[in-house]
Amino acid sequence: MSEGTDPVLSRLFTPKTVVHAHCDLPCGVYDPAQARIEAESIKMIIQKVGENSDADFRTRAIQIKEERSELVKHHLWVLWTDYFKPPHFAKYPQLHELFNEATKLAGAGGTKGSTDVATADKLLAKIDEISKIFWETKQG
Amino acid sequence: MSEGTDPVLSRLFTPKTVVHAHCDLPCGVYDPAQARIEAESIKMIIQKVGENSDADFRTRAIQIKEERSELVKHHLWVLWTDYFKPPHFAKYPQLHELFNEATKLAGAGGTKGSTDVATADKLLAKIDEISKIFWETKQG
Amino acid sequence: MSEGTDPVLSRLFTPKTVVHAHCDLPCGVYDPAQARIEAESIKMIIQKVGENSDADFRTRAIQIKEERSELVKHHLWVLWTDYFKPPHFAKYPQLHELFNEATKLAGAGGTKGSTDVATADKLLAKIDEISKIFWETKQG
Amino acid sequence: MSEGTDPVLSRLFTPKTVVHAHCDLPCGVYDPAQARIEAESIKMIIQKVGENSDADFRTRAIQIKEERSELVKHHLWVLWTDYFKPPHFAKYPQLHELFNEATKLAGAGGTKGSTDVATADKLLAKIDEISKIFWETKQG
Amino acid sequence: MSEGTDPVLSRLFTPKTVVHAHCDLPCGVYDPAQARIEAESIKMIIQKVGENSDADFRTRAIQIKEERSELVKHHLWVLWTDYFKPPHFAKYPQLHELFNEATKLAGAGGTKGSTDVATADKLLAKIDEISKIFWETKQG
Amino acid sequence: MSEGTDPVLSRLFTPKTVVHAHCDLPCGVYDPAQARIEAESIKMIIQKVGENSDADFRTRAIQIKEERSELVKHHLWVLWTDYFKPPHFAKYPQLHELFNEATKLAGAGGTKGSTDVATADKLLAKIDEISKIFWETKQG
Repeated sequence: MSEGTDPVLSRLFTPKTVVHAHCDLPCGVYDPAQARIEAESIKMIIQKVGENSDADFRTRAIQIKEERSELVKHHLWVLWTDYFKPPHFAKYPQLHELFNEATKLAGAGGTKGSTDVATADKLLAKIDEISKIFWETKQG
Repeated sequence: MSEGTDPVLSRLFTPKTVVHAHCDLPCGVYDPAQARIEAESIKMIIQKVGENSDADFRTRAIQIKEERSELVKHHLWVLWTDYFKPPHFAKYPQLHELFNEATKLAGAGGTKGSTDVATADKLLAKIDEISKIFWETKQG
Repeated sequence: MSEGTDPVLSRLFTPKTVVHAHCDLPCGVYDPAQARIEAESIKMIIQKVGENSDADFRTRAIQIKEERSELVKHHLWVLWTDYFKPPHFAKYPQLHELFNEATKLAGAGGTKGSTDVATADKLLAKIDEISKIFWETKQG
Repeated sequence: MSEGTDPVLSRLFTPKTVVHAHCDLPCGVYDPAQARIEAESIKMIIQKVGENSDADFRTRAIQIKEERSELVKHHLWVLWTDYFKPPHFAKYPQLHELFNEATKLAGAGGTKGSTDVATADKLLAKIDEISKIFWETKQG
Repeated sequence: MSEGTDPVLSRLFTPKTVVHAHCDLPCGVYDPAQARIEAESIKMIIQKVGENSDADFRTRAIQIKEERSELVKHHLWVLWTDYFKPPHFAKYPQLHELFNEATKLAGAGGTKGSTDVATADKLLAKIDEISKIFWETKQG
Repeated sequence: MSEGTDPVLSRLFTPKTVVHAHCDLPCGVYDPAQARIEAESIKMIIQKVGENSDADFRTRAIQIKEERSELVKHHLWVLWTDYFKPPHFAKYPQLHELFNEATKLAGAGGTKGSTDVATADKLLAKIDEISKIFWETKQG
């Protein structure tokens, strides 16, 4: 059975927060965790590919990584268009660029086209930056 | 801007845990939060439908609720088939029935066919039961 | 032109029964044949991969096998959640385990991760067990 | 529990033939039953809509009928393009028109735009004509 | 048979330019026309809904409009992330905001939630602004 | 940044015509350009594969080419079933065969199974033949 990658999780196994999703009714439920989930999956896939030399396994991994990267892009786009409003962009002028860079990092020049763990880490770092701002706006 | 439904979240806005997803490589990343997210979205949709008498809005809500319910079923099926193994089923003999009931609660006899908040609450309660067992197995 | 794999079919070419599908209205139309169809397709793909050393062909086959395996899982999950009811599970106590094993056989540890015809045959055998019970319940 | 619509099935519950699907590897497995399954589902949906005056139920039915009709079109298109070859079209000169009419009957001017059982019956009849030719070609 | 909405088209019926799409290999083929196509479809749907009082037709139109709006968002997001690069954003500082507004106009506060032709026209105007910049960058 | 493949486009960058899509409401908006777009993307993918010996890149290209080929088939099928009516088939008796050949050229025996630019060119030529007839019927 697989272990979580977060040491806090591994120790406690007691998730106390509830993550939030989105639909465009809108239901009003959003959370950057959806993008982060897929990005972590991508990192795990890249690590597994590095440890497994079977050609068919690699084919499957490349294809699944492609799908997961597309999901990262989609979840981030949804946040950028549907959750964030003009006052947010006024307060955080770097937000547009941040989203543009993050979604590029999940594309052909990022995790779609790479099997380097460092690329996945860069994507995760960008998502964390977005996440920090997201939670600040929820608090404000 | 919408608020989260969890009072802890509303107060602190400081998500400390990382949720986990799944792909069937397998990447080894799973989390019942994915099903819970969609179920919370369903509950919000049902609440919004109750407060809005516009016919087109209702049509959109019924259709989006259908999709979100299908996603709940899918995420739960993935956990049941891909994460849980024979030793888990031996230790938690109620697990099969729990998943069967939970997925039925997201179907035609559950949140797909109902606009009653109580139905969404029943689904959320079942997912919580599954989630509790899931995190116990991660600890074991 | 391809030949069917069933000798009765190959001889007679006269399908006399009507297979049944499902939607979650529910329309009330179900049939294990939908899962079996995809499993047979998987078996054929595996056989063709064994006879063709072209790398691109193999890439295509691995990917299509992945999709078909996901469809097997989906069709079986639908039967387990939407068709079978508590009285069925009471009468056939092995049913939960049977579905769990069958869907695992179409996953990473089964036909998704394997190019062995024997794996496809095991999956087909499980589907046949489910099918036998399904038709008994229709008769009862 | 729902009953099959075929009287032979209802009496015997003993499916003896195996239906056949398709993938574009190609795996070489085809069967008009896939289109027929969805068309029967459409007919059942239309019948259920006639017996249920609930507005949300109708919304769901209209939407599911739309999806099922699209699936009928897809399965028929696959047969027309991927299974049937020039010699078949030479032997059955009506085949092009038959497929064109059948797919139109599952579109906006057919089961997508209609809640009339007669429209579903016309679609089923066309699929039967195609099916008859299909099985003749398998025999030839 | 339906007529195009562009008077030039209606007169000449002689398309001289070739539109361009995208995949994230990347293939390097992009064109704002993909978003425009779906936006024009949305406008036509809204116009048809205004002329047809049948309830089932309206249900179908609301649902199809939802899908087409999602496609507009997707095609625009792809352009924003995959085609446009930092030098473009430096040269056209309004570009981020333009895409953010355009995608919002295809969401719940835009064509998804509205049956007003004016909303579709606003979306089309935004896409034209993007298109103008796109073709300037191709020329540069 | 990629350049368009059409010399006229490359020179002028001034698209004057509006392309047209389809939904099955029907919205009445159709255009063979949708199929052509995907076919051009396929040709570019094949060219890029010929210039890049990286195995993972090839895996991605084969998979994306598969998806794009499926889209070509879909867009052509939609035109054949939803746009063209009996009077068109009477006037252009070659139309059925043309569509059948074009969709076959995007299948396993065409661009799905081939990495030869000539196959993509044959597909593009067939789409042009269809396009020519399409625009004649719009004029008539």
